[in-house]
Amino acid sequence: MVERRQPIWVKDAVDKVMQWKKRGEVEWISIDDCEGLFLAEPLNADHDVPPFNRSPYDGFAIRSEDTQTASREQPLKLSVIDEIGAGQVSRKIVGENQAVRIMTGAALPAGTDAVIMLELVKEERLENHNFIWIKRRVDKDENVSFQGEDAQKGEVLLKKGTYINPGVKALLATFGYHRVPVSKKPVIGIIATGSELLKIDEPLLPGKIRNSNGYMIEAQIKRAGGSVIKYQNCADDLESLHTAVQKAMDECDAVITTGGVSVGDFDYLPEVYRRLKADILFNKIAMRPGSVTSVAVSNEKLLFGLSGNPSACYVGFELYVRPVIRYWLHSSRPFLRAGQAFLKSDFPKSNPFNRFVRSKTTFEGGTIHVHPVGLDKSSVVTSLSLADCLMVLPGGTRGYRKGDLVDVLFLDDQTGSEEPWKEKPRSSRL
Amino acid sequence: MVERRQPIWVKDAVDKVMQWKKRGEVEWISIDDCEGLFLAEPLNADHDVPPFNRSPYDGFAIRSEDTQTASREQPLKLSVIDEIGAGQVSRKIVGENQAVRIMTGAALPAGTDAVIMLELVKEERLENHNFIWIKRRVDKDENVSFQGEDAQKGEVLLKKGTYINPGVKALLATFGYHRVPVSKKPVIGIIATGSELLKIDEPLLPGKIRNSNGYMIEAQIKRAGGSVIKYQNCADDLESLHTAVQKAMDECDAVITTGGVSVGDFDYLPEVYRRLKADILFNKIAMRPGSVTSVAVSNEKLLFGLSGNPSACYVGFELYVRPVIRYWLHSSRPFLRAGQAFLKSDFPKSNPFNRFVRSKTTFEGGTIHVHPVGLDKSSVVTSLSLADCLMVLPGGTRGYRKGDLVDVLFLDDQTGSEEPWKEKPRSSRL
Repeated sequence: MVERRQPIWVKDAVDKVMQWKKRGEVEWISIDDCEGLFLAEPLNADHDVPPFNRSPYDGFAIRSEDTQTASREQPLKLSVIDEIGAGQVSRKIVGENQAVRIMTGAALPAGTDAVIMLELVKEERLENHNFIWIKRRVDKDENVSFQGEDAQKGEVLLKKGTYINPGVKALLATFGYHRVPVSKKPVIGIIATGSELLKIDEPLLPGKIRNSNGYMIEAQIKRAGGSVIKYQNCADDLESLHTAVQKAMDECDAVITTGGVSVGDFDYLPEVYRRLKADILFNKIAMRPGSVTSVAVSNEKLLFGLSGNPSACYVGFELYVRPVIRYWLHSSRPFLRAGQAFLKSDFPKSNPFNRFVRSKTTFEGGTIHVHPVGLDKSSVVTSLSLADCLMVLPGGTRGYRKGDLVDVLFLDDQTGSEEPWKEKPRSSRL
Repeated sequence: MVERRQPIWVKDAVDKVMQWKKRGEVEWISIDDCEGLFLAEPLNADHDVPPFNRSPYDGFAIRSEDTQTASREQPLKLSVIDEIGAGQVSRKIVGENQAVRIMTGAALPAGTDAVIMLELVKEERLENHNFIWIKRRVDKDENVSFQGEDAQKGEVLLKKGTYINPGVKALLATFGYHRVPVSKKPVIGIIATGSELLKIDEPLLPGKIRNSNGYMIEAQIKRAGGSVIKYQNCADDLESLHTAVQKAMDECDAVITTGGVSVGDFDYLPEVYRRLKADILFNKIAMRPGSVTSVAVSNEKLLFGLSGNPSACYVGFELYVRPVIRYWLHSSRPFLRAGQAFLKSDFPKSNPFNRFVRSKTTFEGGTIHVHPVGLDKSSVVTSLSLADCLMVLPGGTRGYRKGDLVDVLFLDDQTGSEEPWKEKPRSSRL
């Protein structure tokens, strides 16, 4: 009577979803709005950086050869023939025993090959003319920032797919990108299903709860970089669910439903997939929570059926929806950043399935530790608020002990990963 | 001739700045827009979660006492007297050898004290009535999610100052916060100074460079959570600089200038501070880069004088401006998250000053490694784009070796820290 579903591995589920990945359309937007997006084209240097040999300090531009015999005992006297600030260019050519007073960032005048810092000279004014005394030898190229030492014209400075952080924005400005190539954001529709769901501003009623999954998913979509259309909650009713999903699929680039994917009497999503003639990529995954996570494709658009259980919904999003959004944005590292960490507490319960446990990392003396947060019951919404990672506990017949090394997937991170997390061969059997 | 400034410790500089910290005005905004902000009030549970005893599975609500003798050999037959989905409440009272078909999330009917999963019963229809067969004992409370087990009414679920991540947003929705108490964002003005600065869309000219610091700082302000007003670049001219800073101080909650704080002939910020009758908190810090970072206070508003050098500007922002912005937003952890990591490469050059080196972390088998990115010349803008942390190398007479354990401050992080990074007593002398 109950439908038997065949679970697949997490890695296979991710692969199946990513076969339908798409890159978003490229648009050139104002540099003022580019933070947190990804470069959709490589960033090229249109000029050398620095664009000319320049002084990194306030001081005097000199000819190093003049200073070869300068010492405390035999100081050298140079005639100051010009003074330039940053942005100014001296029109003088510096000759023997001459110098130009120069400020940080200014171009080295013709004839000079070194800079001596202001603090290291003695200044003197004689008959309305400025001189300086130098008490040591200055080497050729001393205190010079060379043209092209940071970046050379034509160089690809950043590959496409790079996350735009403050440093990248500085580079974009340096190279005159007042418009920046990025992807249009994918529009993701959210439909929370379940007759028990109240709207956020409705009073509580017997048997009912407020919809929290829709709001949580909205925040996850925004964190991943997508745009959101949040549809009305949908009661467990086949006709209205079908209509709602069809409308959302027409209006969005991908759609997420929460709830209704299990095998209960009121789980109508499987029937909606049939009506939409959607290809079901999978409807059972060897993982906890979120084993009923289903993904279907209709008209080349992905339709994610996440569990109505808050933790399962959360995990399902991060593993399967996030990489699709980041890929769409042209990210070259669309998956969650992975690492390993030492368990901070015993986790004695065994489970035949791979578990993804909401957890929190701490750093201690160069090592990463990980603590499960709150109760490990998938219904617990409070613990989700403390999580900064998902800890992965491979399924098996034994529990885990404090000090065990386990995989973690970081949630508040912009580094990402080129590859998704994968089960290792030793993982439990399907 | 050159002004001699007295450097202070980083920790003292942070303390001096934080003496002028303020909390922003609280406003209640739509839950739709609350991501990435901080709770300005604690979040209280207005009801138990779950609000009633409910089923975590699709199955049958039963009376455990009826099942005490049930076994494979002597299965028990129960009469199904009602069927409820999530959001529905049964009006029946379940009596001896009766059951109610129940879906995930639905409230347990009166009289029942346990749930048996759908997969574990055999269903039978006899004379237009449904029955189930149970082959094992079910314990009291089995498969029941209890009222209040996640959160109890009146409980403070999250303290004020909590970062609003997707899990927090879910909690806000659960408890009916359709409006959320957050701080108005601080408005930070940016004035880039220097006659060498071109606007981003101007062609390059001899001796000139495009302003990149203003754009970088804008991205850093947004990453910290502030709003930005970007003013025209300002040439090295005392009158126009004074006018620009005065205007920005009138219009913003705090102002950042870049450049002009050193002791060169065209460094007019010190004179602007005098004209504004601003109190100078410090104008020299024992750190590299960014030793000339200056902070002044005028009319109880902070005026940050960051270096014109891109790396110094970047570091100065993260150490001194970011915590002010996060505190304003009511964050309880306004400082950069700190940790330690193992140096991935030799860093042979010694330096008497504490250095903050833009770096990149990698995770290997439970340990954190850190690599300096690019050349360590403070003018290098390209390396900033790869940094995910600042590595702190205490000043001293020796360099550092691969494998040394050093402090790191994470840049793309939402966990933060209650306390700022501080020099340890063994650090180099001022």
